[in-house]
Amino acid sequence: MSSLPAALDYIDAHKDEALNRLFELLKVKSISTDPAYAQDCVSAADWLVTELKSIGIDASRRDTPGHPMVVGHSKKVEGLAHVLFYGHYDVQPVDPLELWDRDPFDPAIDTTNAGPVIRARGAADDKGQLMTFIEACRAWQQTHGSLPVNITFLFEGEEESGSPSLVPFLESHKDELKADLALVCDTGMWDSQTPAICTMLRGLLGEELTITAADKDLHSGMFGGPAANPVRVLTKILAGLHDEQGKVTVDGFYEGVDPLPIQIKDQWQSLGFNEAEFLGAVDLSVNAGEEGYSALEQLWSRPTCEFNGIEGGYTGEGFKTVLPSKANAKVSFRLVGKQDPHKIRESFRAYVQQNLPADCTVEFQDHGAAPATTMEISNSAFENARHALTEEWQHSAVYAGCGGSIPVVGYFSEILDMESMLIGFGLDDDQIHSPNEKYSVQSFHKGTRSWARVLDKLAAK
Amino acid sequence: MSSLPAALDYIDAHKDEALNRLFELLKVKSISTDPAYAQDCVSAADWLVTELKSIGIDASRRDTPGHPMVVGHSKKVEGLAHVLFYGHYDVQPVDPLELWDRDPFDPAIDTTNAGPVIRARGAADDKGQLMTFIEACRAWQQTHGSLPVNITFLFEGEEESGSPSLVPFLESHKDELKADLALVCDTGMWDSQTPAICTMLRGLLGEELTITAADKDLHSGMFGGPAANPVRVLTKILAGLHDEQGKVTVDGFYEGVDPLPIQIKDQWQSLGFNEAEFLGAVDLSVNAGEEGYSALEQLWSRPTCEFNGIEGGYTGEGFKTVLPSKANAKVSFRLVGKQDPHKIRESFRAYVQQNLPADCTVEFQDHGAAPATTMEISNSAFENARHALTEEWQHSAVYAGCGGSIPVVGYFSEILDMESMLIGFGLDDDQIHSPNEKYSVQSFHKGTRSWARVLDKLAAK
Repeated sequence: MSSLPAALDYIDAHKDEALNRLFELLKVKSISTDPAYAQDCVSAADWLVTELKSIGIDASRRDTPGHPMVVGHSKKVEGLAHVLFYGHYDVQPVDPLELWDRDPFDPAIDTTNAGPVIRARGAADDKGQLMTFIEACRAWQQTHGSLPVNITFLFEGEEESGSPSLVPFLESHKDELKADLALVCDTGMWDSQTPAICTMLRGLLGEELTITAADKDLHSGMFGGPAANPVRVLTKILAGLHDEQGKVTVDGFYEGVDPLPIQIKDQWQSLGFNEAEFLGAVDLSVNAGEEGYSALEQLWSRPTCEFNGIEGGYTGEGFKTVLPSKANAKVSFRLVGKQDPHKIRESFRAYVQQNLPADCTVEFQDHGAAPATTMEISNSAFENARHALTEEWQHSAVYAGCGGSIPVVGYFSEILDMESMLIGFGLDDDQIHSPNEKYSVQSFHKGTRSWARVLDKLAAK
Repeated sequence: MSSLPAALDYIDAHKDEALNRLFELLKVKSISTDPAYAQDCVSAADWLVTELKSIGIDASRRDTPGHPMVVGHSKKVEGLAHVLFYGHYDVQPVDPLELWDRDPFDPAIDTTNAGPVIRARGAADDKGQLMTFIEACRAWQQTHGSLPVNITFLFEGEEESGSPSLVPFLESHKDELKADLALVCDTGMWDSQTPAICTMLRGLLGEELTITAADKDLHSGMFGGPAANPVRVLTKILAGLHDEQGKVTVDGFYEGVDPLPIQIKDQWQSLGFNEAEFLGAVDLSVNAGEEGYSALEQLWSRPTCEFNGIEGGYTGEGFKTVLPSKANAKVSFRLVGKQDPHKIRESFRAYVQQNLPADCTVEFQDHGAAPATTMEISNSAFENARHALTEEWQHSAVYAGCGGSIPVVGYFSEILDMESMLIGFGLDDDQIHSPNEKYSVQSFHKGTRSWARVLDKLAAK
């Protein structure tokens, strides 16, 4: 009874309305990491509830100790496959604001050499992406009065801030959320013409450390010399985290990191990744990563330790000869294979403590931990989806790795015993987490069409 | 014709009015390093002009490309000695504001175990100190109708921000400003009972470096590994600036640093400096300075490299997996003996360039340079002043070193060929440059009396 062409025609005919709906969501300042925007997160959740209801979904906002979840269910039809679709409505902070060419929460279509793009914070990560799926459902609903598969929707508002409420929510809603397969739209294409299904995700461990020396800021003339300087202590500790070959020195860090199987290495090599172009796009030219690995191997299959933020002493205009009392850094580790984030956290903290002068103290803050994931592509859904993507884009869709971390995939596996399939339409130059984030209009439109096709294939199983 | 007792009695009888005048000056937010307070600096200068005029001084505000100078002259009397008094009306920034127990620009008398203190930004550095001299002059003027010596006043408003206008101003006003001796009130007592004349000052070199890697902030998942991280580059560079013994590694850094003469070392040892108490006062217990030197030697006679500020990436609440484009640090060097600040600046910059990965760039900002100074205490004014201080405090005044830097002393010597005598009444726990800065009421009152006595002695020469 399926009639995919009708759904695709509907998407083409209603492209502008779909864009307008996305713009409404992009205007909501749902920055999850900053408590000042808590009410905006509620607004974004409410907007999604209304949106889902408009396509016949039984949706509601579910409050948590943090930002709310949105859960929705299509009218259940016996005998159909059942998928859970996951996305997140929260976005990254927008600083440094002065580097944006426009208000990050006043979306607009910009013309670029690569075609029109939607410019706004969250355009690609993840509002534009999650809306491709909702719009595909709308097309099926409008043209057939129903969806081709049973669908449960789950949108969270804390993905950019460590998802503190997600695990408890999944634990307490197992029966409601469990499905045959999870669909996640938060990844990218291989390139602007070649769709991809992501089958390897790095894990993520977030740590913050604050080192305190004297109990107040001191004058560097009156105390400089005898008094410990926490910025100096911190830089020494951070500088010791990588060896000369770019390997991370934390004790036991590489436990669970296996060499890449030769067939996967070969497959990746056949993708023709252009390292010079990849680095050149951000004005770099030298691979600064772990020695002995290509950039693609580093990004998809090697763990890292990155310094995401550092602060101490006087950082305003001009100069101040202060000897600061405190220094702070935010450090993250991207994890692969079977690396255990909890063991690595302990080992990292032990390293810091060992290198702390007797006089100084350190406070740690836990910013979340999730192991890496590798998908089971033997599940026929993967090959079906790959065919659907290939038909839409007229380029053979590829199985790719992903350097980023989508912890929810690990949680779905552990808590709901559910595999995930990651399909997304982001591009490398989308500048997610950076000023001037964008999402290609083609990604949005053909992404919507892609999901219409994937749903059709999943129904046909 | 001098009658010191009358002047001292006047000071005692008008103590409260003197405090009220100081409070007026302390209310002016003359933070020189932050352009937002430029108008406040002008207000402070104007206030001083009015104040000087009220004691018969021919004073005026002299505008510069930066904050204004104040210059004043007493009515010249032939045959009298001629001194230049220098102070600065600008103050340090007040951040972190939340660590202040009260508004830093709403001065008040606080009761402490050590007696009453004046609490405000600038109370000790340097508004309270410069006002001790003005109040001593007021007492002489009111009781005798004239001052015991010819006095030129010079107040600057950029001392806390590298004094960019000072050298050009001295160069172009040599004839107007030249005197027999400069008096500077910006240093401290040996302890709360023992006055001191500072005879050794460390020099200061201020540098800021900004390292740029990619041309925009990146996502640490999408680029973490191959893309250079400027925070990592910066921490490695800073961590390399000290060796295991706490020595500074910059090439040629110790050229011009001579061993301390044994007689000075002995004199300092006889002062009975309590290192444990000094560190304990700021909640430290371990000497973190250069190995092989006592804390007092480190502070007064050894050069240092300090990190005064560091910043890069996301430093707000929560976490952001950004791979930053830039990282910045403010670094200062305290200099001693004949160290050449300009050579050290070049050598520091060369070190940074040598350790910069091919892909990264660095920008330097010059925040001033001044060599160390050693005073000629053979000048009889020094012994005369030491006797005056001893008489006021009833404790033998000492010749001390000073860990801080007062670049103006070097400029007076180089440009005006004029020696300086540094007498001040600050205490180690005044928390200058820190939250809750204070100046003891005793320092203010007996400091004023001390200057009245010193002027008397200088007249008697």
